[in-house]
Amino acid sequence: MSRLIKNAPLRGIIPPLVTPLLDNDTLDVEGLERLIERLIAGGVHGLFILGTTGEAQSISYELRRQMIRETARINRGRLPLLVCISDTSITESINLASLAAENGADAVVSAPPYYYTPSQVELAEFYLDLVEQLPLPLFLYNMPSHTKVNFAPDTIRRIAENPKVIGFKDSSANTVYFQSVMTAMKDIPGFSMLVGPEEITGEIVLMGGHGGINGGANMFPELYVNLYNVAERGDLQEVRRLQQTIMQISMTIYTVGKYGSSYLKGVKCVLGILGVCNDHLAAPFYKFEEPEKERIRQALQALQF
Amino acid sequence: MSRLIKNAPLRGIIPPLVTPLLDNDTLDVEGLERLIERLIAGGVHGLFILGTTGEAQSISYELRRQMIRETARINRGRLPLLVCISDTSITESINLASLAAENGADAVVSAPPYYYTPSQVELAEFYLDLVEQLPLPLFLYNMPSHTKVNFAPDTIRRIAENPKVIGFKDSSANTVYFQSVMTAMKDIPGFSMLVGPEEITGEIVLMGGHGGINGGANMFPELYVNLYNVAERGDLQEVRRLQQTIMQISMTIYTVGKYGSSYLKGVKCVLGILGVCNDHLAAPFYKFEEPEKERIRQALQALQF
Amino acid sequence: MSRLIKNAPLRGIIPPLVTPLLDNDTLDVEGLERLIERLIAGGVHGLFILGTTGEAQSISYELRRQMIRETARINRGRLPLLVCISDTSITESINLASLAAENGADAVVSAPPYYYTPSQVELAEFYLDLVEQLPLPLFLYNMPSHTKVNFAPDTIRRIAENPKVIGFKDSSANTVYFQSVMTAMKDIPGFSMLVGPEEITGEIVLMGGHGGINGGANMFPELYVNLYNVAERGDLQEVRRLQQTIMQISMTIYTVGKYGSSYLKGVKCVLGILGVCNDHLAAPFYKFEEPEKERIRQALQALQF
Amino acid sequence: MSRLIKNAPLRGIIPPLVTPLLDNDTLDVEGLERLIERLIAGGVHGLFILGTTGEAQSISYELRRQMIRETARINRGRLPLLVCISDTSITESINLASLAAENGADAVVSAPPYYYTPSQVELAEFYLDLVEQLPLPLFLYNMPSHTKVNFAPDTIRRIAENPKVIGFKDSSANTVYFQSVMTAMKDIPGFSMLVGPEEITGEIVLMGGHGGINGGANMFPELYVNLYNVAERGDLQEVRRLQQTIMQISMTIYTVGKYGSSYLKGVKCVLGILGVCNDHLAAPFYKFEEPEKERIRQALQALQF
Repeated sequence: MSRLIKNAPLRGIIPPLVTPLLDNDTLDVEGLERLIERLIAGGVHGLFILGTTGEAQSISYELRRQMIRETARINRGRLPLLVCISDTSITESINLASLAAENGADAVVSAPPYYYTPSQVELAEFYLDLVEQLPLPLFLYNMPSHTKVNFAPDTIRRIAENPKVIGFKDSSANTVYFQSVMTAMKDIPGFSMLVGPEEITGEIVLMGGHGGINGGANMFPELYVNLYNVAERGDLQEVRRLQQTIMQISMTIYTVGKYGSSYLKGVKCVLGILGVCNDHLAAPFYKFEEPEKERIRQALQALQF
Repeated sequence: MSRLIKNAPLRGIIPPLVTPLLDNDTLDVEGLERLIERLIAGGVHGLFILGTTGEAQSISYELRRQMIRETARINRGRLPLLVCISDTSITESINLASLAAENGADAVVSAPPYYYTPSQVELAEFYLDLVEQLPLPLFLYNMPSHTKVNFAPDTIRRIAENPKVIGFKDSSANTVYFQSVMTAMKDIPGFSMLVGPEEITGEIVLMGGHGGINGGANMFPELYVNLYNVAERGDLQEVRRLQQTIMQISMTIYTVGKYGSSYLKGVKCVLGILGVCNDHLAAPFYKFEEPEKERIRQALQALQF
Repeated sequence: MSRLIKNAPLRGIIPPLVTPLLDNDTLDVEGLERLIERLIAGGVHGLFILGTTGEAQSISYELRRQMIRETARINRGRLPLLVCISDTSITESINLASLAAENGADAVVSAPPYYYTPSQVELAEFYLDLVEQLPLPLFLYNMPSHTKVNFAPDTIRRIAENPKVIGFKDSSANTVYFQSVMTAMKDIPGFSMLVGPEEITGEIVLMGGHGGINGGANMFPELYVNLYNVAERGDLQEVRRLQQTIMQISMTIYTVGKYGSSYLKGVKCVLGILGVCNDHLAAPFYKFEEPEKERIRQALQALQF
Repeated sequence: MSRLIKNAPLRGIIPPLVTPLLDNDTLDVEGLERLIERLIAGGVHGLFILGTTGEAQSISYELRRQMIRETARINRGRLPLLVCISDTSITESINLASLAAENGADAVVSAPPYYYTPSQVELAEFYLDLVEQLPLPLFLYNMPSHTKVNFAPDTIRRIAENPKVIGFKDSSANTVYFQSVMTAMKDIPGFSMLVGPEEITGEIVLMGGHGGINGGANMFPELYVNLYNVAERGDLQEVRRLQQTIMQISMTIYTVGKYGSSYLKGVKCVLGILGVCNDHLAAPFYKFEEPEKERIRQALQALQF
C-alpha cells in the first residue's frame, strides 16, 4: 500500500538514481547498494529510479526489471520509492508499473511517449487510459527536450482530476511554465510540485514548490538536502550561499565535453572517482576517458563545502 | 542468407506496412494476410515492417516479435523483407535483429536512439557498435522529426565503411540534405538511397535515387509502383501526371484532423474502409470516428486513377 | 551624462513601455504622456522604450525616432531612460543610439541581430564592434524566441569586459540559464541582472537578481513595484501573495486569442479600457475586437488587488 | 510598367545578387557593375537584389536605397529586376517598394516580418494589407530558417487571390512542402514557382517548377543557366551530370568554417578571388581570412566544368 496516497504532497529531495552498470547489460549491484546507503545516510526524502538520469531508455527491459527488484530489496521500505515507467508503449509502461507494485514501490512516474508526438488531446486521453490501469499513484513528468512535447497546464489539470495522479515533475527549466502549472493546480490539495534541474530547486521551493528530483544528489546528497531545508524555512542568505556551490557543480562537472550527454557522464564519472559505483554508461553514451576524467577530478577538488 | 548482401542496391517501392491491430495489444492476423497478399499482387519490391508507419514504438515487444514471425510466415520469401529494429536500447535492437534473422528477414533498418539525443560522434560509435552485433545487413534510417537528430553525411559515410551497411532511408523531406548524402555516398557501389515521403519519390528517382519506402503504398500499391517505374525510365510526363494523384492523396487523406497523427489515422482508416484490415491505432493515437471517417470516404471517392 | 555609469546596478521595475499608436504610423502622443505620468506616479524605477513590448520592429524608423524624442521630453530626466536599439543593421543601431544620447537617455539596450543568426564568436565580435561606437552604456538583451540565438554565459562575460556593458536582460524564461549567467558575472561589481517575464521577477529577486523589465507594469505599475520591494526585503509570504495576482494576469489577460501575440494584444487592450492610450497594434498584429475585448474586461474585473 | 504583370510565369535562373561592399556602409559600385555585366553575359533570366544573399538586413536603409538605384542604372532595363523589400515594418517595406517602382523595377519580393512571429491568419492579413499599398507585383518569399514561420499552402492561396501576387520563392529546402504549394496553386495560371537552394533547382524544374533564385549563380551564372535549360527540356542525363558540379560547390565552397554564415562567406570570397567584387561582409558576419581563403582557392581549383 503506497504511502503516497494521502493529502500531503511528497516533499524534499528525491534523487533520480543513476543505474550503476558493469557493461551495457549488467547491473553493478554492489555499486547500487553503496549508492542507496549513501543517499539514505545523506537524508534524502525518497528514491526515484529509471528516470532520465537512470538511463532507463538505454538499457534492456530485463535490466529495468532487475533495477526495480534490487532497489526495492536494498531500500527495505526505508524511503518512498518512485519508479519511472516512461515508455513509448502503453503496454510496456503498465507491465513495469505492475512489477513496481509487486516490489512495494510507492508511486510511478511517467513522461509522455517520446517517439510519436501526441497532441494535448491525445496526451490527456493517453494518461486517462494509463492511469486507469495502474496499480500505483502516478506523477506526471514533463521533459520536453527529450519527448518533444510540453504538458499544457490545462492538460495536467484535466488528467489530475483522477485522484491517483498525485504530482508533477518538471524538467523544462522554464519557470514561467512552472508557475503556470502551480497556479493551475493550486486548488488540488496535496498535489506535489517538483522540479528537475537542481539549479532552480532553491527558487522553486522559496516560491512554494515542494522539492527537487535533482541528479546532483547522487553525488552530494547532503548538499541538496541542506538546500531544500534552508529554502523550506525561508533562509534566503543560506539559499544564496548554497546556490553558489550548486552552480559551481553545474558549470564545471556538467560541462566537460561538448555534448548534451555531459551531465550524465559527469555524474557517473564523479561516482566512479568517489568509489560509489562503476562509471560505465550505456550506449549511445560512453564514459569519460582521460583527459576528461582529469578535468572532473580537478573540478571535484575545487569544490569546497 | 540475405538476398541483399550484394553489389546491387535495393530499388523500387517498399511499403512500410501498417501493423493491423484488433486492440492495443492484439495483432489482426487475417488483416495482415490480406494486406501482404494485396501488396505482392500490386507489384511492390519489398516489405518493410515495424517502422514509423508500423507503430512499432507504440506496441509491446511481444507484439513486435509476433509481427516479425507472422509477416515472414505469410511472405514465404516471396519478397525481400526488411525489419525495423529502431529502439532506444541497443540490447533490444540486437534482440529484434536476431529474431528477424531467425525468421529469414533480408535486412534490418534502424533510426537513431530517440530519447537521449546523441552527437554525431556518439551516433557513429553507436552504429559501429551495433552493426558488429547484427546478423543481417543494415539500412540507416533518418527520421529527425521523431528522433531529434539528423545523420550528417560524413557520419553516414563513416558508418557505411562497414560493408554490412547497405542503404539509407531518409524521411527528412529535405532534398538538399538528400542530395548531399547522395553525393557523399556516390563512390560506394550498390549503396541504396531510398526516401520516405511519397510526395518526393518521383523527383528523387529522376535524380538517381533508388526508390521509396512510401506509406501510401499500403493503400494503393500499384499507383506507387507505377510512379517508380515511370520515373525510373525517365518518362517526365507520366511522373507529373501520377504526381497529381499522389499530391491529392497527401492533401486530402493525410490532412483530416489537425494533429501530427493525421497521416497514420488516414492510412488505417482507408484500409478499414477498403476491407483490408482493422483501423485500430495503438495509444497514444486513436482511430477516426465519424465525422472524420466520412471525410476520408469522400476523399477516397474523389480519387480517380 | 548617463546616471548609469557607476558601480551600482540598475535595480527595480523598469517597464518596457508600449508604443501608443493611433494607426500603423502615427504616435498617440497624449496617450504616451498619460502612460508615462502614470508609471512615474506608480513608483517605477526607470523607463525602457522600443523593446519587444514597444513593437519597435513593427514601426518605421521615423516613428522610433519620434518615440525617443517624445519620451525624453515627457520624462524630463525624472527617471533613468533606457532605449532599445535592437536592429539587424549595426549602422541603424548606432544611429538610434546617437539620437538616444542627444535626447539625454541613460543607456541603450540591444538584442542580437534577428534575421541572420550569428554564432557565439560572431555575436561577441558584433557586440565588441558595436559598443566601441556607442555614446551610452549598453545592456545586453537575450530574447531567443525572437532572435533564434541565446547568449552563452561565456559570450556575455567576454563582451562585458568592456566597462560600457553594464547589464543584462533575459527574456528566455529559463532560470537555469539565468542562474548560469548570474554565476558567470558575479565578479563584475555593479553588473545589472534583470529579467523579462514578470512571472519570475519574484524568484529572481529572491535569488539575488536586480529586478524586472516587466510588461504588466504598463497596466499596473504599483503591483510590480510592490512585488519587487517585498522580494528585495525577503518577505516570502508577501511575494507568494502578490505572485497569485501576477499569475492571474498572466493566465487571463495574456491568453485571450490563440496566437503568440496574445500578450501584446492583451496589454494594449487593457490600456485602452483603462483610458490610458489607444489600443492600436502595428502590423503584423491587430487589436482585439469584440468578443475578445469583452473577455479582457471580464478578466480585469476578476482581478482584485 | 512591370513586364511581369502578365499570364506567363517568370522562369529561369534569377541570381540573388550579393551586395558588394567596401565596408559596412559603403557600396562597391564598380564591383556591382562587374557583377551585373557578368550575370547578363552569363545568360541569367532576371536580377534579384536585397535578398538574404544580398545581406539586406545587415546594411543601412540608405545603402539599400543606393543598391536599388545603382542596380537599376546599371541594368538599363535589360533584365527583369526584382527587389526584395522584406522588413519587420510594413511602412518601411512600402517605402522600399515605392523606390523600386520609381527606378523601374519589375516586381518586389517579401518574406514575412521576422522579429514577431505572425500566425497564419495574421500573415494573410499582413500581406493583404501590404499588397494593396504596393505599386508593383509581389512574389512571396518563404524563408522559415530566418523568419521562424512557414507560409501554409492555404495562406499562399488566400493571398494570391489578389492578382498582384504573381509568384512564390521557397527557400525551405522541403520539397514535400514545395509540392504541396505547387498543388495548391495549380489552378492559378502564370503563378511562378521558384526555389531558393540551388541543390534542388534541377529536380524542381523536372517536376514542373519554373526555376531558381540561386546564390551560386553569382559566381558561375552559365552553370546554373545550363542546369535550368537541360532540366526544362527534360534531359535527365545532363541534369544528373551538372548536378554533380552543383553538389561539389555546395559541399566544398559553402562548408568552409563551421557557422551558418559559411555560404555567404564562401560566395563573397570566391567573387573576391575571381576579381568580380570586394569580399567584405557586413556585421554580424566577417569575411574569410587565411587559411579559410586558401581552402576556398583549393575548392575553386578542384571544380571542373
